[in-house]
Amino acid sequence: MIYAQVHLTLPAWASTDIDPLARFDNDEARMRFVAGLARKNVELGTGGPFGAAIFDGDGRLVSIGVNRVMPQNCSLAHAEIMAFLTAQQRLQRFRLNEDGQRYVLVTSAQPCCQCYGASFWAGIDEMQIGARAEDVMSLTEFDEGPLPADWIGELEKRGVAVKRDILRDECRDVLAFYSASGGASY
Amino acid sequence: MIYAQVHLTLPAWASTDIDPLARFDNDEARMRFVAGLARKNVELGTGGPFGAAIFDGDGRLVSIGVNRVMPQNCSLAHAEIMAFLTAQQRLQRFRLNEDGQRYVLVTSAQPCCQCYGASFWAGIDEMQIGARAEDVMSLTEFDEGPLPADWIGELEKRGVAVKRDILRDECRDVLAFYSASGGASY
Repeated sequence: MIYAQVHLTLPAWASTDIDPLARFDNDEARMRFVAGLARKNVELGTGGPFGAAIFDGDGRLVSIGVNRVMPQNCSLAHAEIMAFLTAQQRLQRFRLNEDGQRYVLVTSAQPCCQCYGASFWAGIDEMQIGARAEDVMSLTEFDEGPLPADWIGELEKRGVAVKRDILRDECRDVLAFYSASGGASY
Repeated sequence: MIYAQVHLTLPAWASTDIDPLARFDNDEARMRFVAGLARKNVELGTGGPFGAAIFDGDGRLVSIGVNRVMPQNCSLAHAEIMAFLTAQQRLQRFRLNEDGQRYVLVTSAQPCCQCYGASFWAGIDEMQIGARAEDVMSLTEFDEGPLPADWIGELEKRGVAVKRDILRDECRDVLAFYSASGGASY
């Protein structure tokens, strides 16, 4: 049999516990929300210690994502990918910013090679990052994979601004919490 | 409303026109099959000019993928990603080769930065490529995105062998056919 369909889901708490009308005034408030998604995902055992969200130019929430690799048996289901997929599904277009508005990906940790690559096609104008790749690799067993030497420059060349170290310590804390609670490696 | 679910599908012809028990004796036969998927996708207007498939160590078909970006409003839905998603769904594991068997991704064109990154986590042992990145970029308007300088070496370091230029001309022909038939850019 050819498997011709795939159905990916966020945890049930994404629908029941997240205020879809939430608005955030600044980068730190948005990152705090995203770090909270990552922590909740670990606490409730619904996936790995990573959270992400897409915000529009007015700071309104468009979509959220958390790591769902193990529960969904899917190596694609990283937090950033889940946020891209659900944002595009919601807006019904494959490039988010094709409407001329500005979209920001906020992610609790630096994207791995897969999510980095996906960020070129999703239609975002900015990527805001909490923990660094070296935090992920020192605090957990996750691998970040290979990136172009000037990975930030490559994004900027194509119109995606990059901002790092937003609440880096809080985002590192989630990774440490995951490892301390004996999390599996994916 | 938080969008908490995504449903991605291959075209209807994937279920009706593909023999799921197909077996192929050699690399060229497998690539010919994959180039055929890409061409059919263009002919039937079900997506972009790219095809991919996963085969197991015995040359048996595990999954197929074609580009579904425009019909599904999804920048993730490249041929290789669709093949990874459906293979993992079928085998119910997020690393295909965790069973100790050997899995090969066959793709009609060199993976873009997104699919390249995804190839590190999907659990494949080999990547077989038809057309080169420069073919894609000279014959169509698709962008391949940035890769690490030694992109093949990075895959090989992590246990993914790379074989290029398999039926390169036939795969180039599909790209040229797409452009000649006035295909949209994604």
